[in-house]
Amino acid sequence: MTPATARASTKGEETRALILAAAVEQASAAGFESLTIGGLAERTGLSKSGLFAHFGSRLELQMAALDEAARRFTEQVFLPAFRAPRGLRRLEALFDAWFEWPRRARLPGGCPIDAATREYDHRPGPMREAVLDRQRHLERELAKTVQLAIDTGELDPQADADEVAFALMGLILAYYRAQATLGDAAAEKRARAGFDRLIAQYRPR
Amino acid sequence: MTPATARASTKGEETRALILAAAVEQASAAGFESLTIGGLAERTGLSKSGLFAHFGSRLELQMAALDEAARRFTEQVFLPAFRAPRGLRRLEALFDAWFEWPRRARLPGGCPIDAATREYDHRPGPMREAVLDRQRHLERELAKTVQLAIDTGELDPQADADEVAFALMGLILAYYRAQATLGDAAAEKRARAGFDRLIAQYRPR
Repeated sequence: MTPATARASTKGEETRALILAAAVEQASAAGFESLTIGGLAERTGLSKSGLFAHFGSRLELQMAALDEAARRFTEQVFLPAFRAPRGLRRLEALFDAWFEWPRRARLPGGCPIDAATREYDHRPGPMREAVLDRQRHLERELAKTVQLAIDTGELDPQADADEVAFALMGLILAYYRAQATLGDAAAEKRARAGFDRLIAQYRPR
Repeated sequence: MTPATARASTKGEETRALILAAAVEQASAAGFESLTIGGLAERTGLSKSGLFAHFGSRLELQMAALDEAARRFTEQVFLPAFRAPRGLRRLEALFDAWFEWPRRARLPGGCPIDAATREYDHRPGPMREAVLDRQRHLERELAKTVQLAIDTGELDPQADADEVAFALMGLILAYYRAQATLGDAAAEKRARAGFDRLIAQYRPR
């Protein structure tokens, strides 16, 4: 690759990253169905043909925005957790980062993947399938993190990892709902208290 | 009121009830934003002018459908709970009925109020305000039911009713998500196990 091609490719990647950042921000606030090639062109100040050079269709843009949201979620939530030692400390780090991620990722509209799950709930098609795949993957990862804390002996060996993960997911959903939707200032305190109580309950006797 | 007027009014109420039943069913599957006077006219086989006689605008129709969904929720979830004695048995009855209500109300698209909360999350306006009012009211009623079980001495007098209600709401949200969205067959078992564990934790020492 000559330096000129390398620069061109870098420039192309930068433009793509810029478009996707704008798309994820918009999806967080108004949903993935609000994304259009024309709208994103306006938002980013690029030409529609410039956008079509990166995304051949609206669906391709939506899919890429979902991938980008998932990539950022992994980066902001799972990577910090994986830096903590496996077991209870990793589970705590995961829960903390999960809470803070819409804020840390500067997504004032809240978690875009959570929003997408609701958005495509009754809207069959490739976006719905992609969102559900992400959600199932996420649940498996959450259950695996719980299982590690069982394996280290920090949680009761009799505990059912899927059941613990289910209750944790509930606290996260209730937190997103109370905090972002209802603007409830006590939401974080209640969610953290819920986490502590849940974990206390599964400590080995 | 002459018998003729009484009949006319009954006929009018029946038509209104028929329209609203169709509207709630549609909102459960496709959201309240999918409701239009024209669409409902087609769905019910009535004329557009017939619908306008009952609802002066699309917003009026949406608001009436939300009211009807809330009325049915109260009828199917809170009324059976109020028939149980106050305290833990009422809380259990409430949780049971809350789970079953989309099925019992024959709403294959799931709880329309839950759907509306997500639908209007980032869509300011009178529908959003109405939905949030409903949700806050619901949360207060749930917390009150928990408080009664504290007052009867069945739950720890030190328990924070809002915190318990928050965790219960989490289990309901996780159940709706896992069952309706992800089609997870184990959702009900996990939600019930979560309820039993949560309550066990708050039993007085």
